Amino acid sequence: MTSPPSSPKHSPFSFQLLARDGRARAGVFHTPHGPIETPVFAPVGTQATVKALTPAQLHELDASLVLANTYHLYLRPGDDLVAEMGGLHAFMGWPRPILTDSGGFQVFSLGGTNKIDDEGVTFKSHIDGAIHRFTPEKAIQIQENLGADIIMAFDQCPEPYDRGEVEAAVARTHAWLERCVAAKTRPDQALFGITQGGIHPDLRERSAEFVTSFDLPGYAIGGLAVGETKPEMHAMLELMDACLPQDKPRYLMGVGTPADLINGVRRGVDVFDCVLPTRMARNHAVFTRHGSRLNLKNAPFARDPRPIDENCTCYTCQHFTRAYLRHLIVAKEMLSATLLSIHNLHTLIQLAKDMRQAILKGRFESLVRAFEFRV
Amino acid sequence: MTSPPSSPKHSPFSFQLLARDGRARAGVFHTPHGPIETPVFAPVGTQATVKALTPAQLHELDASLVLANTYHLYLRPGDDLVAEMGGLHAFMGWPRPILTDSGGFQVFSLGGTNKIDDEGVTFKSHIDGAIHRFTPEKAIQIQENLGADIIMAFDQCPEPYDRGEVEAAVARTHAWLERCVAAKTRPDQALFGITQGGIHPDLRERSAEFVTSFDLPGYAIGGLAVGETKPEMHAMLELMDACLPQDKPRYLMGVGTPADLINGVRRGVDVFDCVLPTRMARNHAVFTRHGSRLNLKNAPFARDPRPIDENCTCYTCQHFTRAYLRHLIVAKEMLSATLLSIHNLHTLIQLAKDMRQAILKGRFESLVRAFEFRV
Repeated sequence: MTSPPSSPKHSPFSFQLLARDGRARAGVFHTPHGPIETPVFAPVGTQATVKALTPAQLHELDASLVLANTYHLYLRPGDDLVAEMGGLHAFMGWPRPILTDSGGFQVFSLGGTNKIDDEGVTFKSHIDGAIHRFTPEKAIQIQENLGADIIMAFDQCPEPYDRGEVEAAVARTHAWLERCVAAKTRPDQALFGITQGGIHPDLRERSAEFVTSFDLPGYAIGGLAVGETKPEMHAMLELMDACLPQDKPRYLMGVGTPADLINGVRRGVDVFDCVLPTRMARNHAVFTRHGSRLNLKNAPFARDPRPIDENCTCYTCQHFTRAYLRHLIVAKEMLSATLLSIHNLHTLIQLAKDMRQAILKGRFESLVRAFEFRV
Repeated sequence: MTSPPSSPKHSPFSFQLLARDGRARAGVFHTPHGPIETPVFAPVGTQATVKALTPAQLHELDASLVLANTYHLYLRPGDDLVAEMGGLHAFMGWPRPILTDSGGFQVFSLGGTNKIDDEGVTFKSHIDGAIHRFTPEKAIQIQENLGADIIMAFDQCPEPYDRGEVEAAVARTHAWLERCVAAKTRPDQALFGITQGGIHPDLRERSAEFVTSFDLPGYAIGGLAVGETKPEMHAMLELMDACLPQDKPRYLMGVGTPADLINGVRRGVDVFDCVLPTRMARNHAVFTRHGSRLNLKNAPFARDPRPIDENCTCYTCQHFTRAYLRHLIVAKEMLSATLLSIHNLHTLIQLAKDMRQAILKGRFESLVRAFEFRV
């Protein structure tokens, strides 16, 4: 662990809201590892690596914030080992900002048979079946060992429709937030609170009110993109824009696609992350900025001399044809995952940057109109 | 296919021998895609990709010559498709020199049940079992479609010990060389002849005499590193240094390790290629320049904060610990193959460069002595 700075009162974290254009926001969040210009898309490096990419390639993509997963790193290689190696930035060779999730989502989705109670969650490792237990305090302790710039409160993410279940999850998430705030010790880490509430406006409002009663450096919108419809998600985002303070960053967890980014920014979201661009790449799929998806394994691409997207400036589109990429896929060459990940991440990172410039110039809606798909 | 240059008499290929130090040679081979400074180690890109690396990463390694395999590319995606996409350089995004082998070695080692006769080789595809046939003319035609700078004569590589078998392979290799020379049409490609002869000095001499009776831009030493002992290989290399012309490059096919490179250069070899560095990387193994090998999957590396090689200047050693690399391996992350390939290729490419500088300064033997292992 890094030793605390000499003046713990002076937080190394601050958010400047530079412009609004409708609900869309452009800002900058300062961290001990440099600024995060928002809107921003954060690539996911689950196991302390964005799959198939070197940090040098992430730099070339001009990624600023990278996500890593607490659940995975706690199990393997262990947060104590990461701490011993100087923390995540040193361990994975990423000198820019890092965010770790709390592990809450994964213990439910990956952790095998769970026992959940007000104290915490008991789960089975997806690697070896061993039994582990996370509590809010444990989730903070692990994240302090990992040493990311932004750490997340331990929460319960419910199915969005069942009101009773959502209400219980909101209550538990709130109680756990209090314990996370109390447990946190490192002044060089920013703890973001997570709001829940499914698709229920009153629960969402109640959650936002409670979570923002803590003066935290940022707030996340949790429990979306988990099965609800797009209009339901958009309604919740509009509600959250009204409930969350303007002077703090808002992070929509686990989203998305080009359309999701535009729809989120249009409703006041600043920060996004998702495994989709790199997971799609490993399944041979790419998106173009204008919403279409291609699966490059398909036969019609065998002799296609065009790049994935003729308007794209990424390394992949500047150097390789669809025919070559399909060849790599058919020949089971690892390079295909690398090149497709570069393209998919570039598409989202560059889209976020372009939206930022448009917001700063008051031209966000004309940028949105330039997209052919329905946003 | 590229159209032939206007003055086909003026070859775009030439070799300058810049210095000798003992038998060791420093030179430069000029090609239409730039110079190859020798000694040189060529990474292997079997299926038109050096596995797990982008061309940009190969540039960073300062690779000059890259190998590709005729057998594999003929089967998939097909040499006609590669020609349609502008040839291998454009297809795989590698603007520097490329060498293709003739497919001869692979039709014997990978091609399933073979029928070999004086006319050619019938073999089964390792992909789908379909029957194909290579002749010297076909091997040249495929390589002309692929469009590498250096193409190789179709040869038969025998087991090194059985004199009768070696003698027959030498005779066949010679007859096939004549047909390759007659079949070749592109003036922008250099055809290298291949000498055979196993471990039999008189057969080696006979082969060198015949092959060098053709005024070719370069000559390869084939049929080594296929089961003979190191002293046997070294004796054959010393013999070849005496038999091959000084003013043409010599290419030792399918070799090797750091020690193999030193041993080869010391006996007059200029060009090397081998899948070993990238194959080892995918099996979690690295070599250090001084001859030791490590398998980074092993438990003692779990908390090892050192780079692979503390004296190495490669990207991997400058940024990552053994502990991190082992974590990637255990977590089955693709990035491990990339980072270990970078290290292994850097070790060989840089060693070849260092030998070149030492030869130019007349200090080759003192460089050799600096290595701890027995060369």
